[in-house]
Amino acid sequence: MVYTNGKKLLALVNCDAVYASCEFLMRYITGFEAENGFVIVDKTGTTLYTDRRYIEAAEKLFQGTDVTPTLYQQGDAIKRLSSYQSVGISFRQTSHSEYETLTKAGVKTVDIDGAFATAMSVKNEWELSCIQKACEIAEDAFLELLPQIQEGMTETEVAALLEYGMRKRGAQGLAFPTIVAFGSHAAVPHHETGMTKLAFGDEILIDFGCRVNGYCSDITRTFLFGDDGKHEEFKKAYQAVLTAHNLVKEKLVSGMTGKEADAIAREYLKQVGYGEQFTHSLGHGIGLNVHESPSVSPKGETSLQDGMVFSDEPGVYFVGEFGIRIEDTIVLQNGKVKSFMSKTDRNLVIL
Amino acid sequence: MVYTNGKKLLALVNCDAVYASCEFLMRYITGFEAENGFVIVDKTGTTLYTDRRYIEAAEKLFQGTDVTPTLYQQGDAIKRLSSYQSVGISFRQTSHSEYETLTKAGVKTVDIDGAFATAMSVKNEWELSCIQKACEIAEDAFLELLPQIQEGMTETEVAALLEYGMRKRGAQGLAFPTIVAFGSHAAVPHHETGMTKLAFGDEILIDFGCRVNGYCSDITRTFLFGDDGKHEEFKKAYQAVLTAHNLVKEKLVSGMTGKEADAIAREYLKQVGYGEQFTHSLGHGIGLNVHESPSVSPKGETSLQDGMVFSDEPGVYFVGEFGIRIEDTIVLQNGKVKSFMSKTDRNLVIL
Repeated sequence: MVYTNGKKLLALVNCDAVYASCEFLMRYITGFEAENGFVIVDKTGTTLYTDRRYIEAAEKLFQGTDVTPTLYQQGDAIKRLSSYQSVGISFRQTSHSEYETLTKAGVKTVDIDGAFATAMSVKNEWELSCIQKACEIAEDAFLELLPQIQEGMTETEVAALLEYGMRKRGAQGLAFPTIVAFGSHAAVPHHETGMTKLAFGDEILIDFGCRVNGYCSDITRTFLFGDDGKHEEFKKAYQAVLTAHNLVKEKLVSGMTGKEADAIAREYLKQVGYGEQFTHSLGHGIGLNVHESPSVSPKGETSLQDGMVFSDEPGVYFVGEFGIRIEDTIVLQNGKVKSFMSKTDRNLVIL
Repeated sequence: MVYTNGKKLLALVNCDAVYASCEFLMRYITGFEAENGFVIVDKTGTTLYTDRRYIEAAEKLFQGTDVTPTLYQQGDAIKRLSSYQSVGISFRQTSHSEYETLTKAGVKTVDIDGAFATAMSVKNEWELSCIQKACEIAEDAFLELLPQIQEGMTETEVAALLEYGMRKRGAQGLAFPTIVAFGSHAAVPHHETGMTKLAFGDEILIDFGCRVNGYCSDITRTFLFGDDGKHEEFKKAYQAVLTAHNLVKEKLVSGMTGKEADAIAREYLKQVGYGEQFTHSLGHGIGLNVHESPSVSPKGETSLQDGMVFSDEPGVYFVGEFGIRIEDTIVLQNGKVKSFMSKTDRNLVIL
């Protein structure tokens, strides 16, 4: 069964039609991935305009749904869009070039970025099942990876093994470039995975995720490759980050703002002396984008609701020394936090 | 050494400054990959505005170059851009939302999409070396894959193995989602790699590529998993596609248009009765995007010049039966075609 979001979106906006031509919004509305084309939703249903490469697959997929796939010709979009009084588009996802083309042809556009963000932030059962699957694959691949990690391996080799594990389990691809950081590289939140070799006693931070039907998982684990006895500060900080991570899972309830959620972890880390080292937000929404609404940061004014999926990822970083981040992809259900991660340890693992 | 394109770009436009905030244009200008931020180029040099996650890496990378990395604050872009008489931006890569923000703040923008396409289509030595490396990795991974292919493997498993081979050789990621198509799936030019299992006698079509410093490789090979004696039509068509592919390499010279290049393959395939089955363009430019200028299609009016990199990928497709595509990433040098692929066979391989 394919899941489509055209009706849900149209109900949120005050327009005759919704138009989208970027890949991921087309995918959000129709559940179908196509590199070219566009989608128009109006009260009669959803039309997916695609090219010869996709039409066969689309016709098969959309039998018996409210989506009609059709081959498009140059000019089809303008022709149909001009017939509406108002057309909702995402100003953020529409290039200025395309906006100009639409406007010059007389299409009356309205910005519906807010509606897209609102609709996309609350996931339905099908979307949740995709994210659940993406999280399971990520955890299974991680568990398979751990015993394969050996001294002398490069960060890139470890990333390659982990990605292979996700891919062979049916992940369509990565949610984002895998971060594997050895030793003090972990202190760089956005470390670029490289050719550094693993040494005994190194800490390892891995931030990774994959996609199922376009939907992402996002997970970070920090652990030690042997204990060389020089990790007292690291272990102390690890416990603090873990406590902050767990406090969010315990105390966050639906109806809190992103800011309030962030504060659960931030206040605790401040109390125990790591306030300065928690240099990023607690989390971010996760869906077809690995970063989307809601914002779970000191600036997050949106109220967190049941069905919203986001990360719980406090971290502390000591430049040149070490970095720790513990991240789960979580969802609000029945007012409380449910983690999609159930297989991997959050307690400190020492290989 | 980091390679920067700010000066080259500024020389092509009639503006005081160039501004870019999308990831891949920032990367094109500076050679640096960052998820957030923006770049401003003016006659004094290039400034990369980035956030805390990247600043450390950027400062290291840009020592002694014409690029100055700096931490940005909200409003920095507007403040500086307002001081210029004219600012060149890509209307295609700038969202309408950002365009509105700039314009409302009084920034005078000029569309320089043409300059970006022109600058990016002709590669310098460093860019060519990245593409060369990406092609070598792809071919090496393919050669490692071939003996591992076994009856009963799924398309996804084959893709996973191939991707692992590229990744462990240092590829940063994929150029695009790998297409592995078994049997009649190969007749769908954009087949979605799935769970179909390989059977004796199946044809296999694999279209894949990876990235080195952001630059892509793109290669397709079609071959047989054993010969069940039912492939006479396939073999005939294979020879036709191979001849078309080779004719392009022989006859294409710098100065021809994309249309003329496309016609070399198209005319031949028409002559031998496959005109109707060659349902796509001969090729597309390849660089930081896997599809970029120049167009090598019946609509390609751009003259193909030395330093331009694109694909040579004729294909014929018989829906429900078989499909054949043979693709190399090639470059024009000293007026003639040079292929980046030298390791893998174009003659029909039967495993």
